[in-house]
Amino acid sequence: MQRFKLTLEYDGTAFAGWQRQPDVPSVQQRIEDSLAAFCPQESITLHVAGRTDAGVHALGQVAHVDIAKPGMTAFRLNEALNHFLKDDPIGILQVEAVDDTFHARFSAKKRHYLYRILNRRNPAALDRLRVWHVVRPLDAAIMQQAADKLLGTHDFTSFRSVDCQAKSPVKTLDAATITRVGEEIHCRFSSQSFMYNQIRITVGTLARIGTGDWPPEKIQEILAAKDRQKAGQTAPAFGLYFTQVDYA
Amino acid sequence: MQRFKLTLEYDGTAFAGWQRQPDVPSVQQRIEDSLAAFCPQESITLHVAGRTDAGVHALGQVAHVDIAKPGMTAFRLNEALNHFLKDDPIGILQVEAVDDTFHARFSAKKRHYLYRILNRRNPAALDRLRVWHVVRPLDAAIMQQAADKLLGTHDFTSFRSVDCQAKSPVKTLDAATITRVGEEIHCRFSSQSFMYNQIRITVGTLARIGTGDWPPEKIQEILAAKDRQKAGQTAPAFGLYFTQVDYA
Repeated sequence: MQRFKLTLEYDGTAFAGWQRQPDVPSVQQRIEDSLAAFCPQESITLHVAGRTDAGVHALGQVAHVDIAKPGMTAFRLNEALNHFLKDDPIGILQVEAVDDTFHARFSAKKRHYLYRILNRRNPAALDRLRVWHVVRPLDAAIMQQAADKLLGTHDFTSFRSVDCQAKSPVKTLDAATITRVGEEIHCRFSSQSFMYNQIRITVGTLARIGTGDWPPEKIQEILAAKDRQKAGQTAPAFGLYFTQVDYA
Repeated sequence: MQRFKLTLEYDGTAFAGWQRQPDVPSVQQRIEDSLAAFCPQESITLHVAGRTDAGVHALGQVAHVDIAKPGMTAFRLNEALNHFLKDDPIGILQVEAVDDTFHARFSAKKRHYLYRILNRRNPAALDRLRVWHVVRPLDAAIMQQAADKLLGTHDFTSFRSVDCQAKSPVKTLDAATITRVGEEIHCRFSSQSFMYNQIRITVGTLARIGTGDWPPEKIQEILAAKDRQKAGQTAPAFGLYFTQVDYA
């Protein structure tokens, strides 16, 4: 058995998310089935750094898998996987042989996400389902002021889905950077781990602040309320990108 | 009758090109049909700056149309069109009322295109059908040297499709800029007009030079030969973007 670390990108549009589920296409299923096509072993299970929802994209997702096939190398695995995935919007970016102490999920020190908002009157054509279209002008500097209040360790109950199954709502947000890039607003977040819908609810809330509907200070009230109902909407999945995982 | 200038973007993947054809989806048909849905007039015909092939994208295509509907303004036309096109990968970026002397095709002074090559071992996932994937390393500086030889007025017979119906193969290439942008090579071209497949054949030829298969000087031989067979392959449509039209 050799453990391999896979770094990959995918367009989440066509998938019901990362996780394998009956009767719907998932990223996990497509990669596991591709592996099974050239690795004859009893079972193949991918472990992933961050399970993404339907529609969420990845630029630097990480997973690991144990392969029993003699002579399998990182290069061969990379080439074979991309061959079997060539008709899917999934691309293997890097494959590394790692030792058994590496775990894509449990060894992750920090996860990085990008949320893209298209902030102009007219919608996107080429980036339809790649950005959240917000017509009303957003003030990135005001959004940054509010985002700064979320840095550090807090009870993020207001910013997680009511369906979230994490044991504790206390998380540490290490970075939150809001910048205007032409007609887009880019929201970047880093943490060891995020709760279900945490980034999308945070972005939905920052958007209410960016339009001027809410003052930036309101984010502290929302945080203190520990009540999902106080925060803004859950921004759509398709603006979200899982960009990077740090393991050191 | 009021003439309107439309600036638009589209993802060419789903279309058989700009031009209306029987039984296949085209950008022209989708926009004309959308206009017909709210402009009751005998006929609606879009005139376009550059008819793009199947798979070619546009970031700044320009078309014009004459609308008979009383009270129609640029703002209303923009809003209504984007409403009717909301399920299509076509976006209206700008609408301007113009006078009858403006013609999207005949008034165009310069057309600008971008060709994107992804130059790495692993293929694209999110940008599948948005970039041409070339595995062998390309030297952008060498490609630029070759591209420089095409600047100015030449008989571009070697660089046009055998199906090209342009009366004269003599064209003036005003700009050709080849730059590396991370893992991509961006090839930008400007001219008053291009012939059928001219940019894609030029890029296919530059790629042979960028890999070192051919020396940069060979491009002069190819130009002098006036023979399509001497040039490189026609690079795929999906790497090509019509970016801008200048009218002054």
